Amino acid sequence: MSDYHAMWEKLGLDLAAHDGLLEVLPPLYQDCILSQENRPEGMQYFDFVFSEVHGLRIKELVDHRASGGIVVGTFCTYVPEELILAVGGACVGLCAGAQVAEEAAEQYLPRNLCALIKSSLGFKLAKVCPYIESCDLLVGETTCDGKKKYYEILNQLQPVHTMELPQRKDEADRRLWREEVRRLVARLEEISGRKIDEAALRDAIRVINEKRKALLRLAGLRKCDPPVISGRDALLINQIAFYDDPVRLTEKVNALCDELEERRDGGISIGGAHRPRILLSGCPMAIPNWKVPTIIETSGALVAMDEMCTGIRYFRHLVEEGAGDLEGMLDAIADRYLKIDCAVFTPNRERLDHISELVRDYDIDAVIYYALQFCDPYTVEAFQVQQELEKERVPFLYLETDYSSEDMGQLTTRVQALIEMVETQKPSVF
Amino acid sequence: MSDYHAMWEKLGLDLAAHDGLLEVLPPLYQDCILSQENRPEGMQYFDFVFSEVHGLRIKELVDHRASGGIVVGTFCTYVPEELILAVGGACVGLCAGAQVAEEAAEQYLPRNLCALIKSSLGFKLAKVCPYIESCDLLVGETTCDGKKKYYEILNQLQPVHTMELPQRKDEADRRLWREEVRRLVARLEEISGRKIDEAALRDAIRVINEKRKALLRLAGLRKCDPPVISGRDALLINQIAFYDDPVRLTEKVNALCDELEERRDGGISIGGAHRPRILLSGCPMAIPNWKVPTIIETSGALVAMDEMCTGIRYFRHLVEEGAGDLEGMLDAIADRYLKIDCAVFTPNRERLDHISELVRDYDIDAVIYYALQFCDPYTVEAFQVQQELEKERVPFLYLETDYSSEDMGQLTTRVQALIEMVETQKPSVF
Repeated sequence: MSDYHAMWEKLGLDLAAHDGLLEVLPPLYQDCILSQENRPEGMQYFDFVFSEVHGLRIKELVDHRASGGIVVGTFCTYVPEELILAVGGACVGLCAGAQVAEEAAEQYLPRNLCALIKSSLGFKLAKVCPYIESCDLLVGETTCDGKKKYYEILNQLQPVHTMELPQRKDEADRRLWREEVRRLVARLEEISGRKIDEAALRDAIRVINEKRKALLRLAGLRKCDPPVISGRDALLINQIAFYDDPVRLTEKVNALCDELEERRDGGISIGGAHRPRILLSGCPMAIPNWKVPTIIETSGALVAMDEMCTGIRYFRHLVEEGAGDLEGMLDAIADRYLKIDCAVFTPNRERLDHISELVRDYDIDAVIYYALQFCDPYTVEAFQVQQELEKERVPFLYLETDYSSEDMGQLTTRVQALIEMVETQKPSVF
Repeated sequence: MSDYHAMWEKLGLDLAAHDGLLEVLPPLYQDCILSQENRPEGMQYFDFVFSEVHGLRIKELVDHRASGGIVVGTFCTYVPEELILAVGGACVGLCAGAQVAEEAAEQYLPRNLCALIKSSLGFKLAKVCPYIESCDLLVGETTCDGKKKYYEILNQLQPVHTMELPQRKDEADRRLWREEVRRLVARLEEISGRKIDEAALRDAIRVINEKRKALLRLAGLRKCDPPVISGRDALLINQIAFYDDPVRLTEKVNALCDELEERRDGGISIGGAHRPRILLSGCPMAIPNWKVPTIIETSGALVAMDEMCTGIRYFRHLVEEGAGDLEGMLDAIADRYLKIDCAVFTPNRERLDHISELVRDYDIDAVIYYALQFCDPYTVEAFQVQQELEKERVPFLYLETDYSSEDMGQLTTRVQALIEMVETQKPSVF
């Protein structure tokens, strides 16, 4: 690994604090990811990318900016990557998955706020995130109250363009959202000094669709039983998909899928116990938040699918590629993103239906609901998810947690109890 | 007081639980409201209305329904009362201000959710709210995440029509909101079997504007120093304004204002210490939530104004009365409600400006920010309010609380420290 300290210093990072952060990651990665047995060889690329998470990828972004490109940071799956790509920008996901500078963040934010938001501000205040410091623009969205209001504060520290996401999916909402997509185009054009043209947008739609198709192909391979890839490795790939170069990532995911198909056909699995098959559903898990999947998979179960923004919600829908002109493409993009079934929508029947569909398609034995403490949309919607699963007699476990490790023991006990219950075929829920 | 048990039973209340609730209210009312010295005589009407909160007013609603009218329940200042009035409906505010059936509510809702929402469901589940049981329709709104998602659950128990409130105030938002107003009209017409016509709507606009003017007149009289009315009495009137008959309430508020003007001119004040003058800002205080104002006023200060939904935010703006036809009136109504500066909007500069204006107009010595625990919009926006007040060197105290009485001691200590600080003219904030 090269020495990136000069680069980090130039980005304005607090080098001592940042070195401290980087020391924590490798042992965590070892415990959660590298310690898994019989991983596919294709994971080596992702291990490498992760080992260079604050190094080589940042250098690429720095080089990109030096050659006139822009970098745009996002916090949510609702922000159209295609638009950023079409102005020659690089898109990086900025959601933060570790407790950093919590006390400093609580000078700005209430204590009872979700860990993801506090972590985001913590990384900014502590100057330990080279991604946010590389951004020419941050793009927020009015998804949940916490983020919506947090962006106003963040905007005091760095420019934030906030997209207004509607809260329902009727025609009036679609009109508003299509306008929002155009408002983002205008802002990106202003920042980048480049106009979005038809050819560039068509190309961007294709590139991001290819990424989604590769991730969908990988998702499909998670139906294999015995499994050919672990839930943790799949999560890691999804997390990396938010910040890696999309063309390269697509190629690497497809190469991995080739290998996984060989494994499947050759009867090679990841080994170990792989029952029950768990659907993880709920809030996103940003790097390096592997706590719950690690608990599940080291307790003998398999995370067979993730119904979350760092899972299938990110890549489930493609942008329709038939549109003839720029306006048609912008509408197709808007429509695709409006399909996402985040709990911020009301009503949000699509999500309940999708969960049922995943339970069937992935031969799911139990659903574990991952709720970040204080995340109202997902914690309140949990009730309806549970109702739905009760109807279908699918065991359901609700875990409310944050980024601390204090509750590891308690979570482990509850997950193990679920696994035991499923294995002994008790049909009750809890 | 008549015996209303037969009426309550018919409404489906749990009589034993309801009797228990009613036993708690009089001593609380005595401590918080009646124990005040030198109250205006005009408060007798409001004392009477409160003493009949589950009695005579409910009987009026029952009679109203018996004669073919509908009753519509609301949870928020964004729901246009005029429309309900124009279909011959009675509008009642349903926000709940007491801990009721919390454990039962937590079977449906996460523990870490604001007290107002849990209380609302608690009242419903425990069958102790004759208002919600009198409603032909509940009208929700997509203000905060918690309520938005809660309405989906409540809708399983009783029909809820949810209005989509936009999150910004641009032209696209105005269009969407104007459509939402029309969508509510359609639903109200369907439920009531009555079409809204021009004459009825014009009359309704006038009636509700008159209520607002009376409340504004009362608000203006709170500028008097020495004060002619307490903050607690003003709050009580605002709370009652959400469920009382609007024409009668207007008449009684105006009669009270006549008396207060006489007091002012005659140099008669409510007596006792009346400094510092406090602006209470933040979340709404539903009946019987008088905890914080009581702490403030029994500690020697005066709540001179309430920048909250149970305060001036409820009646600050009038509907423009110039519109010639039905469509024009509906637009005027939509536009009026979109002016409300709830923290759910982003950005929400208007609120910061309004707070500064109130600080000047009401000769405010300190701002106490009342935050319901877990209320993300108001708890996060508090930071910017504090920033704004720091610029103007106005002392600021942030109180985060819920509906329990456990923190009374701690809150009292903090309020007393603020008062002491203001009285000794220290210019710092905390």
